[in-house]
Amino acid sequence: MEQQKLKRRIGDMIFEHEQPLDKFFDIGVLIAIVLSIFLVMLESVPWIREEYGAALRVAEWVFTLLFTAEYALRVYTARRAWRYMTSFFGVVDLLAILPGYLSLFLFGSQYLIVVRSLRLLRVFRILKLARFLGEASVLRRALSASMPKITVFLGTVVTLVVIIGALMYVIEGADNGFTSIPKSIYWAIVTLTTVGYGDISPQTPLGQTLSAFVMIIGYGIIAVPTGIVTSELSKVDQEGPKLHCPECSTTEHDEDAVHCKYCGKELEAGGAGVSA
Amino acid sequence: MEQQKLKRRIGDMIFEHEQPLDKFFDIGVLIAIVLSIFLVMLESVPWIREEYGAALRVAEWVFTLLFTAEYALRVYTARRAWRYMTSFFGVVDLLAILPGYLSLFLFGSQYLIVVRSLRLLRVFRILKLARFLGEASVLRRALSASMPKITVFLGTVVTLVVIIGALMYVIEGADNGFTSIPKSIYWAIVTLTTVGYGDISPQTPLGQTLSAFVMIIGYGIIAVPTGIVTSELSKVDQEGPKLHCPECSTTEHDEDAVHCKYCGKELEAGGAGVSA
Amino acid sequence: MEQQKLKRRIGDMIFEHEQPLDKFFDIGVLIAIVLSIFLVMLESVPWIREEYGAALRVAEWVFTLLFTAEYALRVYTARRAWRYMTSFFGVVDLLAILPGYLSLFLFGSQYLIVVRSLRLLRVFRILKLARFLGEASVLRRALSASMPKITVFLGTVVTLVVIIGALMYVIEGADNGFTSIPKSIYWAIVTLTTVGYGDISPQTPLGQTLSAFVMIIGYGIIAVPTGIVTSELSKVDQEGPKLHCPECSTTEHDEDAVHCKYCGKELEAGGAGVSA
Amino acid sequence: MEQQKLKRRIGDMIFEHEQPLDKFFDIGVLIAIVLSIFLVMLESVPWIREEYGAALRVAEWVFTLLFTAEYALRVYTARRAWRYMTSFFGVVDLLAILPGYLSLFLFGSQYLIVVRSLRLLRVFRILKLARFLGEASVLRRALSASMPKITVFLGTVVTLVVIIGALMYVIEGADNGFTSIPKSIYWAIVTLTTVGYGDISPQTPLGQTLSAFVMIIGYGIIAVPTGIVTSELSKVDQEGPKLHCPECSTTEHDEDAVHCKYCGKELEAGGAGVSA
Repeated sequence: MEQQKLKRRIGDMIFEHEQPLDKFFDIGVLIAIVLSIFLVMLESVPWIREEYGAALRVAEWVFTLLFTAEYALRVYTARRAWRYMTSFFGVVDLLAILPGYLSLFLFGSQYLIVVRSLRLLRVFRILKLARFLGEASVLRRALSASMPKITVFLGTVVTLVVIIGALMYVIEGADNGFTSIPKSIYWAIVTLTTVGYGDISPQTPLGQTLSAFVMIIGYGIIAVPTGIVTSELSKVDQEGPKLHCPECSTTEHDEDAVHCKYCGKELEAGGAGVSA
Repeated sequence: MEQQKLKRRIGDMIFEHEQPLDKFFDIGVLIAIVLSIFLVMLESVPWIREEYGAALRVAEWVFTLLFTAEYALRVYTARRAWRYMTSFFGVVDLLAILPGYLSLFLFGSQYLIVVRSLRLLRVFRILKLARFLGEASVLRRALSASMPKITVFLGTVVTLVVIIGALMYVIEGADNGFTSIPKSIYWAIVTLTTVGYGDISPQTPLGQTLSAFVMIIGYGIIAVPTGIVTSELSKVDQEGPKLHCPECSTTEHDEDAVHCKYCGKELEAGGAGVSA
Repeated sequence: MEQQKLKRRIGDMIFEHEQPLDKFFDIGVLIAIVLSIFLVMLESVPWIREEYGAALRVAEWVFTLLFTAEYALRVYTARRAWRYMTSFFGVVDLLAILPGYLSLFLFGSQYLIVVRSLRLLRVFRILKLARFLGEASVLRRALSASMPKITVFLGTVVTLVVIIGALMYVIEGADNGFTSIPKSIYWAIVTLTTVGYGDISPQTPLGQTLSAFVMIIGYGIIAVPTGIVTSELSKVDQEGPKLHCPECSTTEHDEDAVHCKYCGKELEAGGAGVSA
Repeated sequence: MEQQKLKRRIGDMIFEHEQPLDKFFDIGVLIAIVLSIFLVMLESVPWIREEYGAALRVAEWVFTLLFTAEYALRVYTARRAWRYMTSFFGVVDLLAILPGYLSLFLFGSQYLIVVRSLRLLRVFRILKLARFLGEASVLRRALSASMPKITVFLGTVVTLVVIIGALMYVIEGADNGFTSIPKSIYWAIVTLTTVGYGDISPQTPLGQTLSAFVMIIGYGIIAVPTGIVTSELSKVDQEGPKLHCPECSTTEHDEDAVHCKYCGKELEAGGAGVSA
């Protein structure tokens, strides 16, 4: 019974953090994540690795074991363990510890530990930033309303890029850096998105003329996704962010409300619930 | 009589695909297109060509013959053969097989087979994605409403680019890579569109000052097409996508309607009919 | 008397082009402009200059003399000669012939003949494209309404670029290509506008960190001019293009009107009259 | 008593500039700032430094002493000295003279004198450009209304860039220029913002494929901040710039009003007062 109560208490601390002191646990976790990512970055710098390699490796293992313990605790105390494990943050929590163990067999995989940074997205939830959650929800709704238009747009762009890539391959040829169609398509994307590395660039007058057209097209069609997102954002913005109560599913709350006005339960933003 | 009926049946399968099983024909064609484009891309990679060149060539010919047969079938079974042959997709279907035969006389032209990818645009029609058709129609209407403004804008940009190109040619000269006015114009387009390869870049202080102005102008005027498309898109979006019935030409349908509410005929999106 | 009448007739042909046949004069002039710009471009290409240099020079002189004659005719037949000479197109017409004569004293100046392309902007007027004039007027009004905001924005950008340039000069120094503050400012503009030639790029970790911030700032503030133009364009667009009668100054015309409904005079678009 | 009166008179001249002749003091200061920044830029150019180094150093010290005297005068005559010293422009005024003295101990720091350019922002206030102040206020309000959305957006971008950077480090490795995770993150930012220097660019097919996706993502998400700013700007713009009276705090003024219609006091723009 005592154990059950303790489990419940820990679960509340980890998942609900409604008690004032509970947030210190989460803030501690956040700091640990930032530190561990920072360590991995440092280890990748050659001269730091040579000098402090051993110490960094030890510290990384400490963090990996710590996060493993935390993950076990989360699975153990979650009300519905399976639901947590298959949730977005559940998968991220698992991915955040796997590369550490993988590095025993596969050299270099420890750098993938940085997927841990996805866990930082919890910050909005932990700090009870209802306002930011609302804004995130507006952005998410506008982007998902833009999806069908963006899909049609991207389909057209991909078709365009394949054709331009093949044309440039035929025009410029392997001597000018366009060594294969996939590489030409890579060039077409670099050009159309106005990135323009310059690692491959057209040398023949005909190729330069065609690429000038591609640039002007790219310059023009960058307007399309912008137009799509802007017009959706204006629409969604007029409706305002929708906060919904996880208990009674009411959505008629004021924009700055933190608790449901009917049942007092803390509010969640948007349709897609962000479960921490 | 029997033959006539069969012809009609095949025509229905290819063009109307109203029967549930008909779409398998189209999906098969789509897969064949994707495969054949993939083969051409592979053939262009030097080490793959060396190793599997012969096999790839055989496979390409199989696809070309297959698409030729399909084209012949389409012309034969189309209700109005000439109207199909002069339609957008009719021309694309022809262009999709020509480079294959051309490659017999002109080495390298087989890579142009990728224009075949334009046929993929049929996917929206085949999969009966009424919603995507509606979105495509909104985009198309917004873009065609933007055309006059974009034309005026592009006319101004072309004039600007010619003058900047000539100025830079006089300022920088052939020694700094600006070997002719057409090449300088190419540089001006690369700069104005913010692509910036860096294959040609100004070396003299005066040239760098002028190009700094060009960049700021380019940075500013990218706002113009975006503004044009966004404001048109907002207007068109408020009207909603217009579905029109090919039978009775009614356009007062709900946004998510798939069949005409007056005659039951399947609806088409937009003014410009997308005939598959 | 006869001479006076002829002068008036020619003036009408050049400036008013209301008679159906008059536009042929203007179309002839447009073609001559395009041809002469094309010749200058060709002459700048080394191998063409070597082969056909003499012939091209002769042709250029023919065009320069032709345009000189046309300019003299315009000044002579204009109702108010001085007003024409000080108008936008009057100045452009003069600039279009000056570089030809200048090339006698200053080698290379003949390439500036391309300012002639500004004369092409008359095309909208000549072809009586009332619709395009209307669109041009909407664009011009939106851009001039955006000016004060754009000025404030550009002032901030210039201040930012000067400070970033000086900082990078101190951080990176002459060894890494940042040889002086003006050159660092040039780099800052290349980076902030997302052009990114790569002719100068930061080498030190501190410089790369700072430039990463500059890029993100540049990525963010490109949104500002776009936002300004879009919101002005939406406002102006709702009002519609304003056509005004040069005779009775009425502006209440339908969008597609070509002649004033009160006095029959041909309509002009926008506030700033485009006198051809 | 006399001294007190003089102090008040000078204070009025420096801070209030309501008398017609007072603005000459400020315009003089502005010109001095521009000149001194220009001198610092010139000094950084190698050949100018070699030739005129000594003279430039003397002139710089003259300006530094002049601005020091001006700062002392401002502190002495300000009604509330401490409030001035901690205001935005008070701090900038101090920063504008510090690098001059710092250069005695730390070579190169005199170039930081360019922070002086921030003082130029006072120009809008000095020239009584109420209209520009209004526009600046609209921009400021729109940008600060966009902040929460932009923060959420930037948080997502930073997370993305860290993960992409680590992935590319693992894929490409030190041999292809991706020598450490921080450098890979630098590359990811260069690519995502479409700057594309080309100093580091992917060499392996897998790396090029991933970077093609990064570019398309970058091309797409540039739409997000633009959409945010545009939709906020449209909202704020419809409200119009709010001028408020510093005396009686009324905000119901016409857009082009310069003086309060109730008490005649000069109007200030926006909520955040710009104190000169």
